[in-house]
Amino acid sequence: MLESLKKQVLDANLLLPKYNMVTFTWGNVSGIDREQGLVVIKPSGVPYEELKLEDLVVINLEGEIVEGDLRPSSDTATHLALYKAFPTIGGVVHTHSPWATSWAQAGRSIPALGTTHADYYYGEIPCTRTLTEDEITSGYELETGNVIIETFEKGEIDPVAVPGVLVSGHAPFCWGKDANQAVHNAVVLEEVAKMALHTYQLNPEVNSIDQFLLDKHYLRKHGANAYYGQKSKEVKQ
Amino acid sequence: MLESLKKQVLDANLLLPKYNMVTFTWGNVSGIDREQGLVVIKPSGVPYEELKLEDLVVINLEGEIVEGDLRPSSDTATHLALYKAFPTIGGVVHTHSPWATSWAQAGRSIPALGTTHADYYYGEIPCTRTLTEDEITSGYELETGNVIIETFEKGEIDPVAVPGVLVSGHAPFCWGKDANQAVHNAVVLEEVAKMALHTYQLNPEVNSIDQFLLDKHYLRKHGANAYYGQKSKEVKQ
Amino acid sequence: MLESLKKQVLDANLLLPKYNMVTFTWGNVSGIDREQGLVVIKPSGVPYEELKLEDLVVINLEGEIVEGDLRPSSDTATHLALYKAFPTIGGVVHTHSPWATSWAQAGRSIPALGTTHADYYYGEIPCTRTLTEDEITSGYELETGNVIIETFEKGEIDPVAVPGVLVSGHAPFCWGKDANQAVHNAVVLEEVAKMALHTYQLNPEVNSIDQFLLDKHYLRKHGANAYYGQKSKEVKQ
Amino acid sequence: MLESLKKQVLDANLLLPKYNMVTFTWGNVSGIDREQGLVVIKPSGVPYEELKLEDLVVINLEGEIVEGDLRPSSDTATHLALYKAFPTIGGVVHTHSPWATSWAQAGRSIPALGTTHADYYYGEIPCTRTLTEDEITSGYELETGNVIIETFEKGEIDPVAVPGVLVSGHAPFCWGKDANQAVHNAVVLEEVAKMALHTYQLNPEVNSIDQFLLDKHYLRKHGANAYYGQKSKEVKQ
Repeated sequence: MLESLKKQVLDANLLLPKYNMVTFTWGNVSGIDREQGLVVIKPSGVPYEELKLEDLVVINLEGEIVEGDLRPSSDTATHLALYKAFPTIGGVVHTHSPWATSWAQAGRSIPALGTTHADYYYGEIPCTRTLTEDEITSGYELETGNVIIETFEKGEIDPVAVPGVLVSGHAPFCWGKDANQAVHNAVVLEEVAKMALHTYQLNPEVNSIDQFLLDKHYLRKHGANAYYGQKSKEVKQ
Repeated sequence: MLESLKKQVLDANLLLPKYNMVTFTWGNVSGIDREQGLVVIKPSGVPYEELKLEDLVVINLEGEIVEGDLRPSSDTATHLALYKAFPTIGGVVHTHSPWATSWAQAGRSIPALGTTHADYYYGEIPCTRTLTEDEITSGYELETGNVIIETFEKGEIDPVAVPGVLVSGHAPFCWGKDANQAVHNAVVLEEVAKMALHTYQLNPEVNSIDQFLLDKHYLRKHGANAYYGQKSKEVKQ
Repeated sequence: MLESLKKQVLDANLLLPKYNMVTFTWGNVSGIDREQGLVVIKPSGVPYEELKLEDLVVINLEGEIVEGDLRPSSDTATHLALYKAFPTIGGVVHTHSPWATSWAQAGRSIPALGTTHADYYYGEIPCTRTLTEDEITSGYELETGNVIIETFEKGEIDPVAVPGVLVSGHAPFCWGKDANQAVHNAVVLEEVAKMALHTYQLNPEVNSIDQFLLDKHYLRKHGANAYYGQKSKEVKQ
Repeated sequence: MLESLKKQVLDANLLLPKYNMVTFTWGNVSGIDREQGLVVIKPSGVPYEELKLEDLVVINLEGEIVEGDLRPSSDTATHLALYKAFPTIGGVVHTHSPWATSWAQAGRSIPALGTTHADYYYGEIPCTRTLTEDEITSGYELETGNVIIETFEKGEIDPVAVPGVLVSGHAPFCWGKDANQAVHNAVVLEEVAKMALHTYQLNPEVNSIDQFLLDKHYLRKHGANAYYGQKSKEVKQ
C-alpha cells in the first residue's frame, strides 16, 4: 500500500539526521497521497537508525490508522490540520532544530535579511502567537495546527511562498510539494535562522532586504520565469 | 560480578564521546544496583577509547572498593551522595559539556523557555550556590553532592521530574532511572542550554513558557497518561 | 577542450563541501584560460556529489556557451564581470558560507582584527553598497559584478591584495590566481568572519591591528621577500 | 637522529587536525631534547596529511638547521625564545584556533571562570601587550617570544602553572612537559576560551572563581597530592 510514498517518507525522515537536524527522535516527516486522501507518517519515538518501511503508519485525514502496527507521531494532528488547510502541499516536517527553535522560543518572526532567505521564503517566516490554556488542554496538537493556519490567514501569507513557520515557545514546522522538499525547506530555515541571529548581533538596526531584491531571488528560482537549475528537470529548490 | 550493570555503565560512558559531550576524559557515568547497594563507576582519567568492562570499579555506598584494580572517578563521592539522597535514581553522569558548563560558570539556572526543555525537565534546571572555603577544603566532592541536594530540598524540586543540575562555577550533573537515561538527560540539558542562550540573545525579556504548556509536554512523555512513543515498550524519554 | 582547467575547476568545486562551505548547491567556482579567453564554470543547481567533468560548462567572456549541455551557474555574469575587470585573477568562487554571509547581511565590512586576516587579506574586506531597483531588474548578476568592481575602484583597493568581497544583503565572492586559490581565500574569509564577530562580542571597541603588523604578516607570505613555506615551491598561500 | 623525539613531534602535529585546532597549515608543534640542546619542529607550510618523519627539521637553540631539507616553521624563533626562557618545558605549540584567537584579537586575558580552566591553568591566561613597530620590523618572531616572556615576568606568572598565552592581535601559544602535553593544553585553552565567551554573554558581571576552588581543582590534578587519574601512571593532565 502506497509503497512509493512510503519510500519517499522514509528517505525524507532519514535526511533529518543526515543534515544534523535532530537530536534523538526529535523530528518527524509525513507525506500525503491526495487522490486517496491518505497520509504516511513516522511512528512515534522510533530512532531513525532503526526505522524501516513497514514501521511507517498510514492514516486517513481523520487520523484513523489505515495500516501499521505502531502509534503514529504524537504530532500527527498538526500534520493533518496543515494538509487540510493548505491543499497543494504534499509533505510536512517538524523538528526541534536548534537555531530555528531559538527563534520560536524567543517568539520572534525571522525577517528576510538576505538572498539565502529570499531564495526559498518569499518574505518573513512568521512566529505564531502562544496557545491559550484552553487550546492546550482541549486538543494540543490539533490547536498547534490551527494556530499555524490562523497565522497565515490573518497575515495573508501564502503557505506555498512561505513554506514554514515557528510555533511560539515550541519549534518549527515546514512543508513543501513533497516530503523531500519539506525537509529541504527545514534545512534552509535552520541555516537562515542561524545567520539571522548573527546578522542582528553585527547590526541590531538591520532591515529586511528591499522588496525588489526579494522578488528577484525568489522568482529566479520559482514560477514561470525561473532560470535557476536545469531546463530538462523541474525547477529545483 | 554485576556483569549486566557493568555493561550498561560501559555503554553509557561510551555515549559521551558519541554525543560530543566530552573533551579528553572530562566525564564519568555510574550506575547502581539498589538491592546489593553497589555502584559501578568509570575509573579516573582513563580515555573512553581504551575503557574496558574490567576497568570499571565496583564500590559500596561508603565508597569502599569492592572490585577493581583502578581508582574510581575523582567525583565518586558526589555520585554516592546523590544515590543516597535520591532513592529512585539508577544512574548518574557528570560532564563539562560546554553549553551547560557556560550556564554553570555564569551561576544561572536555566528557565523552561520551550517545549524541548519541558519534554524532559519539569521546570527550571537549577544552579547551586557556590561552595564555601570550608566545604571545599574539608571534602570537596562530597560537599558538591550536598550542595546539589540542598538546592533540591530548599527549592522543593523533585529530582525525578528535574533530573539535572548546574554546580556553580563548575559544570552539570544529571541522573535518571539508569545510566543510559542519565546520559540521555545530559544530552538534552546541553541542547537546551545552547538554545536558551540564543533565545536570550534574540529576546532578553523572554519569560518561561506557560505552566499549562510545561504540563502538557512533560506529561505527554511521562507518567500514567503519557502517549509519546510506543505502547509495547516502556514510556520512552 | 581545456581538460586541465576543467579538472582544476571540478576539484575546486568539490572543495566546497569538503570545507563545509555549502548547504545544498549554494556555491559555484569557475576558472579562466586567459589566452583563449574561455571560462569553465559549474552548471546551475547540480549537486556536488553528482558533478562530473563533462557537466562543466565552457563559455566565452560574452557569456556564450562554447561547450556543454547544461546551463551555467545563474551567477555566471558576475564571474565574467570580475574576470574582465581584474585582469590577473584566474579563479572566482561564490558561496553563502554562513559567517561571511552574516556580515554581508549586516552590510558591514570586516576590518583586519588579527594576523589570520593579515596573512591573506591586505586590509579590510569591503562590503558593497546595496543595489538599486533599476540595477536589480535590468541585469542583476551583471550589476552584482559591477557593484563589486565599483567598490574596489572607489575604495582604491587592489583586488590581488584583497581577494574577496561581501555583497550587501547577499553573500561573499572571492577570487585568486586560480580556482583552487579562490576557494582557499573563501575558506579564510569564513574563518576570519567567524572570529571577527566573536572579537567584537569580547571587545566592542576593538580597532584594526597596526599597519606595521598587517604589513609584516601579509608580506611574509606574499611578494618578493616572502619567507613562509618552502623555497622549492611557489610561495604558498 | 632524535628518532623518538621526532616521532613525538610528528604525532603531536597530527593531533592538531584531529582535534579541529587548525585550518590549512595554521599551526606548528615542536619538542626539545634538553640534553643535546636540539629542537625538532614542523617545516613551514607543509599540510598535515603529507607530513612525514623525515620532513621534520632539527635545529639548535641558535636556530641553525642541524638536520632537514625543508625550512622550519616561520614561527621558529618564537619557539626557541620560549625554550630558553622557560627551562622546564619540553614542547611548544602555536595555532590560530578560533575561540582562543578571538580573545587574542580582542586583547583580553581569560579569567578562571570555572573548574575546567582550573584543572589545567592555575589562574588567568594572560594576553600580551601589542608589539611596537620597532619590535615587528627588527625581528618579529623573536620579539613575539620576548613579549610572551615579558608578560610572564612582569605578571609574576609561573609558566609551568599557566602553560599558555594569547599574543595580542595574533593568536595563542601553549607549552607543556612535552609536545603532546603542549597540544593537550592548547585544546583545553580553546575549550575554555569558547566557554568563557558564552559565560560573559550569560552574565557580564561574572567574576573569577574563588581562589580556594582554583586551588582545589588545580592541585587535585597537579603536584605531590594530586589524586586524579591512576597511581600506576604519571599524574595525567
